[in-house]
Amino acid sequence: MSYAFEPIGVIHSCFKEKFGIPRQPGLVPSARAVIELTPPFDRDEAVRGLEGFSHVWVVFVFHAVLGAAWRPTVRPPRLGGNERVGVFATRSPFRPNPVGMSAVRLEKILREDGRLSLYVQGGDFLDGTPVIDVKPYVPYVDAIADARGSFAHEAPVSPFLVRFSADADVACQQKEGSFPGVRRLIEEMLSADPRPAYRDTTDSTAVYGTRLYDFDLRWRIEGNMVEVLELVSP
Amino acid sequence: MSYAFEPIGVIHSCFKEKFGIPRQPGLVPSARAVIELTPPFDRDEAVRGLEGFSHVWVVFVFHAVLGAAWRPTVRPPRLGGNERVGVFATRSPFRPNPVGMSAVRLEKILREDGRLSLYVQGGDFLDGTPVIDVKPYVPYVDAIADARGSFAHEAPVSPFLVRFSADADVACQQKEGSFPGVRRLIEEMLSADPRPAYRDTTDSTAVYGTRLYDFDLRWRIEGNMVEVLELVSP
Repeated sequence: MSYAFEPIGVIHSCFKEKFGIPRQPGLVPSARAVIELTPPFDRDEAVRGLEGFSHVWVVFVFHAVLGAAWRPTVRPPRLGGNERVGVFATRSPFRPNPVGMSAVRLEKILREDGRLSLYVQGGDFLDGTPVIDVKPYVPYVDAIADARGSFAHEAPVSPFLVRFSADADVACQQKEGSFPGVRRLIEEMLSADPRPAYRDTTDSTAVYGTRLYDFDLRWRIEGNMVEVLELVSP
Repeated sequence: MSYAFEPIGVIHSCFKEKFGIPRQPGLVPSARAVIELTPPFDRDEAVRGLEGFSHVWVVFVFHAVLGAAWRPTVRPPRLGGNERVGVFATRSPFRPNPVGMSAVRLEKILREDGRLSLYVQGGDFLDGTPVIDVKPYVPYVDAIADARGSFAHEAPVSPFLVRFSADADVACQQKEGSFPGVRRLIEEMLSADPRPAYRDTTDSTAVYGTRLYDFDLRWRIEGNMVEVLELVSP
């Protein structure tokens, strides 16, 4: 017996590739995404009253890993990438049913050009993510003050300082017009060190890159310093 | 395009009927449930490390309403059952994809008679609920201290006092052996007034009933007093 779910919408996100996406929602508060509800779910009545909630749950499909075989254990980045824990003890996308849930700040709900969209902040969504549900974040139910979280109890510290090369600085200023807050987004994202697992020894000649909005972001790491090298529009 | 999810387990719950189930998790902390993982997901490694978390998210299917047509608005009990709000602004089970998520306290993980089970408290699950995912509750991500929740910001007050008839009192004591804490469970459940929507005028002759564990529970309401009439084993 299996259950079939139809997407109610799709996420337009600043994150165009998996690499660089924050490992949890809320870690990169400047990350912006738009949840576009798709027909027949794009009705104004269906979101009536949602504007009264500061945060919403987005239940989505990890579509980039669909079809990947699940394994009973995974290696969470928080444990350095070496220790294996049970898949049900992590929020890894590689799970029997690749369903994710993230609580994000609801900025506004807009109908534009006939489309009904929820603007959210702080998400960890890959662009194009299919959404299967949106629910209000209900504080007295969802915010469990006395919950204890084992190895994932506290937010990871971000020991990396981010600085921009002269070229990247200019390019970033130009992008601010189209993508307000993009500099801060890059800072938040890179200070969290998006590499798959922390490595003690870093190869300072390695250049990392990912796609953000409409450009390619490139950076390198030396010691605890991230240098943003360039923002390249293809 | 739709996505198919296979249950990873099934919930054995004290709540055998929809009527009487708490409207949110956490409102009836004495409610107990056992999540039995089913093959091939019932592997010890798959839950390794989960015991370090005090709470878990259970992502499940509202199987009792499968096939029901979704409507863009619903009438939440919290608003007296008269006001309509958008389905995505509520946690109602009647939604386009009948997926629920509840954070519950993880009491213990046990393997017994070859079965791997998670014992949880505070759930709002109907017996037989199919589970599609279990995830750790990660406090720094999930407990949003500054979230605001509109009409569902605070826990509902429970103005109903619960008392037991002499017969119900004796029956309850007998049930305590098989179901420890059953009296407290009944008190928590009925003080929250499980009737579909609050009514100002109550018919004090009406007898309500639902199935709990292996017995039928019957009660009536007079003013702000709930009287437990009987616990009947069929």
